[in-house]
Amino acid sequence: MTAPLHDKRPGTTSVQLPDTQQGMRRRNLSRVMHAVAAHGPLSRAAVATRIGLTRAAVSTLVDELIRSELLDELGPERPGRVGRPGSALAVSSRGPVGVGAEVGVDHLAVCAVDLRGEVRARAVQHVRNRGRSPELVLRDVATLAQRACAEARQVGLSPAGLAVAVPGLVARDTRSVVRAPNLGWHDIDLEPLLPSGLPLTVDNEANFGALAELWLGEGTPEDFLHVSAAIGIGAALVVEGRLLRGTHGFAGELGHVPVRPEGPSCPCGGRGCLEQYAGEEAVLRAAGLEPGEGHVGLLAERAAAGDRAVRRALGGAGAAMGIALTGAVNLLDPQAVVLGGALARLAPWLLPSLEQELMGRMGGRACGVTVSGLGPDGPLLGAAHSVARAVLDDPVGVCTAG
Amino acid sequence: MTAPLHDKRPGTTSVQLPDTQQGMRRRNLSRVMHAVAAHGPLSRAAVATRIGLTRAAVSTLVDELIRSELLDELGPERPGRVGRPGSALAVSSRGPVGVGAEVGVDHLAVCAVDLRGEVRARAVQHVRNRGRSPELVLRDVATLAQRACAEARQVGLSPAGLAVAVPGLVARDTRSVVRAPNLGWHDIDLEPLLPSGLPLTVDNEANFGALAELWLGEGTPEDFLHVSAAIGIGAALVVEGRLLRGTHGFAGELGHVPVRPEGPSCPCGGRGCLEQYAGEEAVLRAAGLEPGEGHVGLLAERAAAGDRAVRRALGGAGAAMGIALTGAVNLLDPQAVVLGGALARLAPWLLPSLEQELMGRMGGRACGVTVSGLGPDGPLLGAAHSVARAVLDDPVGVCTAG
Repeated sequence: MTAPLHDKRPGTTSVQLPDTQQGMRRRNLSRVMHAVAAHGPLSRAAVATRIGLTRAAVSTLVDELIRSELLDELGPERPGRVGRPGSALAVSSRGPVGVGAEVGVDHLAVCAVDLRGEVRARAVQHVRNRGRSPELVLRDVATLAQRACAEARQVGLSPAGLAVAVPGLVARDTRSVVRAPNLGWHDIDLEPLLPSGLPLTVDNEANFGALAELWLGEGTPEDFLHVSAAIGIGAALVVEGRLLRGTHGFAGELGHVPVRPEGPSCPCGGRGCLEQYAGEEAVLRAAGLEPGEGHVGLLAERAAAGDRAVRRALGGAGAAMGIALTGAVNLLDPQAVVLGGALARLAPWLLPSLEQELMGRMGGRACGVTVSGLGPDGPLLGAAHSVARAVLDDPVGVCTAG
Repeated sequence: MTAPLHDKRPGTTSVQLPDTQQGMRRRNLSRVMHAVAAHGPLSRAAVATRIGLTRAAVSTLVDELIRSELLDELGPERPGRVGRPGSALAVSSRGPVGVGAEVGVDHLAVCAVDLRGEVRARAVQHVRNRGRSPELVLRDVATLAQRACAEARQVGLSPAGLAVAVPGLVARDTRSVVRAPNLGWHDIDLEPLLPSGLPLTVDNEANFGALAELWLGEGTPEDFLHVSAAIGIGAALVVEGRLLRGTHGFAGELGHVPVRPEGPSCPCGGRGCLEQYAGEEAVLRAAGLEPGEGHVGLLAERAAAGDRAVRRALGGAGAAMGIALTGAVNLLDPQAVVLGGALARLAPWLLPSLEQELMGRMGGRACGVTVSGLGPDGPLLGAAHSVARAVLDDPVGVCTAG
């Protein structure tokens, strides 16, 4: 699978660097990397034009990036152009890879993505993780990650970091899962349980899914609300191309927006939360199925086969989502709502009632609702890409270390 | 009134400048201005220490700012310190002022704030603007602004811009009010109607109120949801010290978050919106008063006097606000909710039921709810300060022009 890493927002960098000569050099190294990753192969002159620096300045930066094995020189360009033929630059096909991992309720997955955005290694394990001890789950994740790293190293790549997507709340700027009800986890620090030797980041799967949509989605805007679901309902807000994390890292809890204030009690402590109408358990119940009996895949199959009870249940879930999203769109004024993850599969039966509520309640002024093309891979890809992008955002770390 | 302009976030600048030598110089001029505004009087050496530049670099920047009349040299510091005595620098007491204006339903106000954050001129006019033609309203605003500018010029100040707060939706990066239902305005471009000769900015009063809270509030965090109300209910989200405006500039429409999906119809096209339970008209009606009979001031007086119907109505409004805020806090995870504007006066009777709903529905995990100390002046001060801060954020504009 080939996913261009930087077809979008090539100039943006999420790293805050000091405003000194040294900081400026680091930002300019990043600009060169992003330009070549997004538009390469490019000559030095073309890079200079793209990022608005002199050719001499770009050459110094490029030399440093070549020495650090982040860029490759492909040899002289074909003649026929004006001036001395330049040598085309490309992002190195060796060099760093980002390793992403996903802890799902029913599976574990790992992949490695290079600086061009190509998936270079991948492993999946089907295993029921609900109620399993975090130690065992994370030991399996570590094994899969080691396998992917070994595979990457064999072809000359060097893993730059490991990012793990979990279906739960992660305290901001930590590696601690505060709670992941669908795994049965409370206050689990992943750092000591995942000794990979790589820098570790941990985030909510909805956040990584939204980042994947931002970086890899077709025509995704800079401001959007990404709604995903597995068993709960999560959302992530992207504002001006940046994830809005919230003070504690808990932003995006769309599943606990009240839909009917006197509705059924929710384990969160609230009443009538969206999850009580549109969470997996609620939809299965509304369709006359036992909660243990099925999951999103079964619902999609039955709805596609014309099962009226399932379709009615999904219509009800879509209407509840439309009510909760009316609040979210009024508060956030996003450019679009994107249904991703498992919700994308159910979109044909959720969307009509969802859009009817949202548009009706907003007097026709609501933003559009689109369906993600990434499917359930979003969070895993988002995790791996986040590591690869961190290298592009601040290549000097690699340059210095290299 | 003396409000220190930059006691908070002195280093932050909202202006995006290019990453070149010239851009770095502009950012460093801004850092010097912010440091002196926040902590002055300061010697050149103290400025250098604060912003992490060499004394020589700071001296060049300071000389330029003195020439542009943005900084004053107060003369040699008292002896007794080590080394050659430095000359203390202060933000010029002449120089630019920001002019802010507020269009209210029942009044117009204008004030001028200097770079130290002191209000140097002020004018208010009580007039019922609902249903009045925008031309007449803005002619009055222009007259008040001219009066404030003349007053400022008499003491050697030069107005740097005019910012107008309006109770309605303003299209992002424009000076156009898309709709202000309580004034009866639709699609009004203020630019041609306010020929002040000054650069003009226009924004929603809730946004300017939130910025005033950010810049002037006591202990206001960097992430908060500011809720204000006059006749409608508005909110503004501040994330990491920046206003979240939304794609069209319409973010913060808390008043149209659905509280009860089958509730009364709202002019916005929705049903059961928060304004149907907590807007001024709804509260007056719930208290057994006619909508024309009173306003926030009357409600506060009666509640203070022990009027049980008014207190019950405010309790109901607070509960509805608690439900809508449960959704907002779940989505945004702010550090605090701040009640500002007219709501601050009603807080004693709104807060108990509001907090009970919010805390109860969030299982005790909700952020705190505080009351703004700025009172109804917030939007006006926010408007004037926004102009003054723009000068501090990019003083080179003034340097070049001067």
